[in-house]
Amino acid sequence: MSIEPTTDELELGPVLTALADPHRRRVIQDLIEDSTGAERTCTSFGLPVSKSTRSHHFKVLREAGLVHQVDRGNMSGVTLRREEIESRFPGLLELLRSEPVEP
Amino acid sequence: MSIEPTTDELELGPVLTALADPHRRRVIQDLIEDSTGAERTCTSFGLPVSKSTRSHHFKVLREAGLVHQVDRGNMSGVTLRREEIESRFPGLLELLRSEPVEP
Repeated sequence: MSIEPTTDELELGPVLTALADPHRRRVIQDLIEDSTGAERTCTSFGLPVSKSTRSHHFKVLREAGLVHQVDRGNMSGVTLRREEIESRFPGLLELLRSEPVEP
Repeated sequence: MSIEPTTDELELGPVLTALADPHRRRVIQDLIEDSTGAERTCTSFGLPVSKSTRSHHFKVLREAGLVHQVDRGNMSGVTLRREEIESRFPGLLELLRSEPVEP
């Protein structure tokens, strides 16, 4: 599992790159909506992509510092780094939460 | 000159893709800082890139709906679509304005 950046190391460029993809943005939006912050499996988001593409998406999210991921044997658990994102990029999560629906 | 999206047509995906690039982000950050909203030329941002790359960057910004661009003969004038971005994606400009400096 690749290294996750610390809060101080979070950079807007990789964060925006990670969020530019609609599937990755959906994962983050799903995590934002669950205020309990419960751990999710990578498969639980129902992304319509192959296993390798899904793994790639979570790697990008993890390396950007948006999610924390832990190995649980035959699966992995994902949580949103909510407080860290909010402290480093105030307003970003709210912006994603309120993404306008296509007109 | 390509079509610019209307306010209703602005979509977060292309906007985030446009802003993920550091040169394009710098253009928008420069425009945000100038509250007079004065028109700028594409060359005035001093991007350290070739003319064709610069043209590409402004095309991406324009097609995402972040800037308005008008032909002025041998140059073109660029303005930030500040009110439209703010109305469609509240908080986005503030997020860019306050991008943390590398620690």
